[in-house]
Amino acid sequence: MLSSSGLGVEYVRAEGNTVFHLDANGNEIPVTDYCGGYASLIFGHNNAEITAHAKSVLDSGIPVYAQFSRHPVANRLAAKLNEIVARETGATEPYFAHFASTGAEAIETGVKHAEFDRVLKVAALMGEIEAHVEEAREAARDGRLTVAESAYRKAGTEAPSGGGAGAGAGVGADADADADADAVPPQDAFEQLAGAVARHNGEVAARPPVLLALEGSFHGKLMGSVQLTHNSGFRSAFGGLGAQALFVPHDQPDVLTKTVDGVREQARVLDVVVTDGVADVVERDFPAFCAFLVEPIQGEGGIRALDRDAAAHIQRVTADADCPLLIDEIQTGLGRTGAFLASSHVGLRGDYYVLSKSLGGGIAKSSVVLVHQSRYRGEFELVHSSTFAKDGFSTAIALKVLELLEADDGAAYRQVVERGEMLRAALDRVRADFPEVVKDTRGKGLLQGLEFHDQSKSGSPTISGAAQGGILGYVAAGYLLGAHRIRVLPTASAPNTLRFAPSLHLTEEETAALETALRDWCALLRDEDEKRLTGN
Amino acid sequence: MLSSSGLGVEYVRAEGNTVFHLDANGNEIPVTDYCGGYASLIFGHNNAEITAHAKSVLDSGIPVYAQFSRHPVANRLAAKLNEIVARETGATEPYFAHFASTGAEAIETGVKHAEFDRVLKVAALMGEIEAHVEEAREAARDGRLTVAESAYRKAGTEAPSGGGAGAGAGVGADADADADADAVPPQDAFEQLAGAVARHNGEVAARPPVLLALEGSFHGKLMGSVQLTHNSGFRSAFGGLGAQALFVPHDQPDVLTKTVDGVREQARVLDVVVTDGVADVVERDFPAFCAFLVEPIQGEGGIRALDRDAAAHIQRVTADADCPLLIDEIQTGLGRTGAFLASSHVGLRGDYYVLSKSLGGGIAKSSVVLVHQSRYRGEFELVHSSTFAKDGFSTAIALKVLELLEADDGAAYRQVVERGEMLRAALDRVRADFPEVVKDTRGKGLLQGLEFHDQSKSGSPTISGAAQGGILGYVAAGYLLGAHRIRVLPTASAPNTLRFAPSLHLTEEETAALETALRDWCALLRDEDEKRLTGN
Repeated sequence: MLSSSGLGVEYVRAEGNTVFHLDANGNEIPVTDYCGGYASLIFGHNNAEITAHAKSVLDSGIPVYAQFSRHPVANRLAAKLNEIVARETGATEPYFAHFASTGAEAIETGVKHAEFDRVLKVAALMGEIEAHVEEAREAARDGRLTVAESAYRKAGTEAPSGGGAGAGAGVGADADADADADAVPPQDAFEQLAGAVARHNGEVAARPPVLLALEGSFHGKLMGSVQLTHNSGFRSAFGGLGAQALFVPHDQPDVLTKTVDGVREQARVLDVVVTDGVADVVERDFPAFCAFLVEPIQGEGGIRALDRDAAAHIQRVTADADCPLLIDEIQTGLGRTGAFLASSHVGLRGDYYVLSKSLGGGIAKSSVVLVHQSRYRGEFELVHSSTFAKDGFSTAIALKVLELLEADDGAAYRQVVERGEMLRAALDRVRADFPEVVKDTRGKGLLQGLEFHDQSKSGSPTISGAAQGGILGYVAAGYLLGAHRIRVLPTASAPNTLRFAPSLHLTEEETAALETALRDWCALLRDEDEKRLTGN
Repeated sequence: MLSSSGLGVEYVRAEGNTVFHLDANGNEIPVTDYCGGYASLIFGHNNAEITAHAKSVLDSGIPVYAQFSRHPVANRLAAKLNEIVARETGATEPYFAHFASTGAEAIETGVKHAEFDRVLKVAALMGEIEAHVEEAREAARDGRLTVAESAYRKAGTEAPSGGGAGAGAGVGADADADADADAVPPQDAFEQLAGAVARHNGEVAARPPVLLALEGSFHGKLMGSVQLTHNSGFRSAFGGLGAQALFVPHDQPDVLTKTVDGVREQARVLDVVVTDGVADVVERDFPAFCAFLVEPIQGEGGIRALDRDAAAHIQRVTADADCPLLIDEIQTGLGRTGAFLASSHVGLRGDYYVLSKSLGGGIAKSSVVLVHQSRYRGEFELVHSSTFAKDGFSTAIALKVLELLEADDGAAYRQVVERGEMLRAALDRVRADFPEVVKDTRGKGLLQGLEFHDQSKSGSPTISGAAQGGILGYVAAGYLLGAHRIRVLPTASAPNTLRFAPSLHLTEEETAALETALRDWCALLRDEDEKRLTGN
């Protein structure tokens, strides 16, 4: 596939926004890189400051791996993350940082934490109910308890035969050993109720946790996280390996509301309350939700941003349902959109944030999940760990990345905004001049997308064939590379959309060259120009 | 927990087998490190050659991230891995390398690949059966088909009423429109059978894949891999997030046989065969097994090695059942036991091998799953990917690690054997002199364990309390660090076992100091010496 699409190139050197391959004579051919390591290089390839820092870390001789000891660099990194997140979101309580090595790992660490929290809440709730049942059981044993008639119905059972159908059902201070043969012994009558309550609650508690994600989502491809990634091509073969998620559209708020309400209605457990010696059954909310995962801008889903209304709706619905909100900022965070967190543009606040990609500075592999104090469970540290996580090398580099982002009162963020506007303006000009070819341009900062109209009916067989096979984006990439020395790729789950994620060093000259290249490609599409595309 | 066990130390520098912390006056205190980054540092902390290589890679300006292009370094690494594996195992067909960043990721990549392969096999089998059914259906439509009486029974249904109970059931060349009202139309009679076959097969195909692992196993802690890790403390809270495994003991071969046979008996699908115009039903094996995961020596499980007989039994049973065998060499591979693969010591051959830890050279994060050609599916490359995998930095370092291992005709392996024997001899002397305290010593090469007898009835309240709480290994670690400047930790799932996994630079002097320290600790345990342990 690499070869047939013209992408089978070996890059031998990389610097800033430029990657180089060699021509037949061994000369370096520069290519402007809009892939940027799948948006993981906000400071570009082999950034001089980060590289120098990495080398100084190696020279310093600090331990890279010293598990189960103090990690002051990781602690400083966590503190710095908190400082920035608090500034942007106004959060007043801290987030606890749990480190991992890749984005998918941090997603799974976050989901595991959310599930750990949920399971502990379930255990606490069940323990509370069990205590109520035990208390009532003792009262029944002592003859101090009547069961309200309605209790049986609420518990999905019937009053035991021989039990009174009136004010109370067979268990009461007036039941005695001389009652007729039909009378149900007081304890048996209560146990009938307790059994029904236990069965109902056991059934509810045994259900798998509810995981929610948006249609178009991408949260990783490991055994668990791939089930949170909407694209069925990535997910469906592995349905037997991980818990399934419920996917909801981001542009139909009522579907989210209905889905969440539907889960809540089904997720009620029963508790026993005793008032003035009468036992009744009440319904209690059950913590059914593990987490709702959201990307503020879907990267692999085609550069699709949540707007402020959608964000507010998600915030409200998840808060009402006490469903933890996990914001996946792997591709969008760390300045990529002109803010540290893209979610802050639309006022979305997470119980969890996941960061990675640029956190590694283009050298190391680093990721982190931030867990809001209100949900944090310290015991999780004893249950979850990873050999490579929280290592001295990657955390030191991540700290350097944050320093670069925050330097000079946030000059990097301002630069992203400025260069992003420049890039977007170029894409918009192409769109304006080729409306029959370009369907949309969208994005924020230095995460921009350009979507083509469907070309499956193109008069060029190569174009229409590629469009029908869902690989036109790769054909475009091959053309732009071969003819214009531009490296760009389609998004993973929206193959008609090209993603532009250069570093903040993007220049006017590079942008102008991109515009020229895109105009050429659009003209080729518009003209259905088989000859120019294939040389035939 | 760090502080209370005396392990809350900050290490400021690390070199070879030594980590350093500072005393109150800022002087470096050397500590001999037997943790070795959870056995990830076969060449020690900050190995000079690897560090120099890492710096030269950074200086070279190669692209670290250039996804979807040619990766010659990764290709060279894959070729070198193949060369070494072929030499050790005698494998004549190649393994395909799929790279990831951590051990758990590579495990999950391997399991995903195995499941992908299985799902494609299921689809092929179902397609074949569907073609047979369709062929028979056409024959039934044309009146050329009789259904054997036994077919209905085998399909778990009954011959449709009105169908003949004799030689054939209602479908036959002699059935015609003039048959009496009881006669079942030929096609309906066949559809009765086809429906039963489809229901049965659908039920079998919908079952989750069968994952097998050994009791005591540790294969990671991500959402999927944690379910393959036996320790219920790590696993049970997350049962709702991933597929469950069947765990079998390594020392009871009959349990494995029975478990596998049980799965196979239940995993039969039905096919329709037509012989001389008579349709019958036959059972066919169904690919129920995703994978069997095995560590040749369980690291976190307490340094427990498979012996040659157990290995041969696993090899035979999995081969008979066509169950892919995934050998987890994350902790044991790359020379740790004196061979590249610890499994080669006992002649165990994998369909999959997973490597990580030392592959990162103590700096980078690198892992790989090797997939035997006979099971490899090229399409998997289009379905599975990871931003940080196959990066230029970690693959270049991994290649350097292999060079160091293989240099001088395998001097490194020989050194591991020699130093491992020296270490083991020291542990054995301690065991011999403290039989009332030391229960066992075991391991291979530079992966050794020392297991203490249960101390929960010690006369020292601190010792007995820690033993009862399952944290005596951490108390031992705190004592050895504080009193002897030795860093060692218990294995994660066998807390009475200390793990010794130093680098191959381990010296006689270091080993002697370890022996002295262990003798001191053992004497303390033997003497139930509360005062010396706590100062009270």
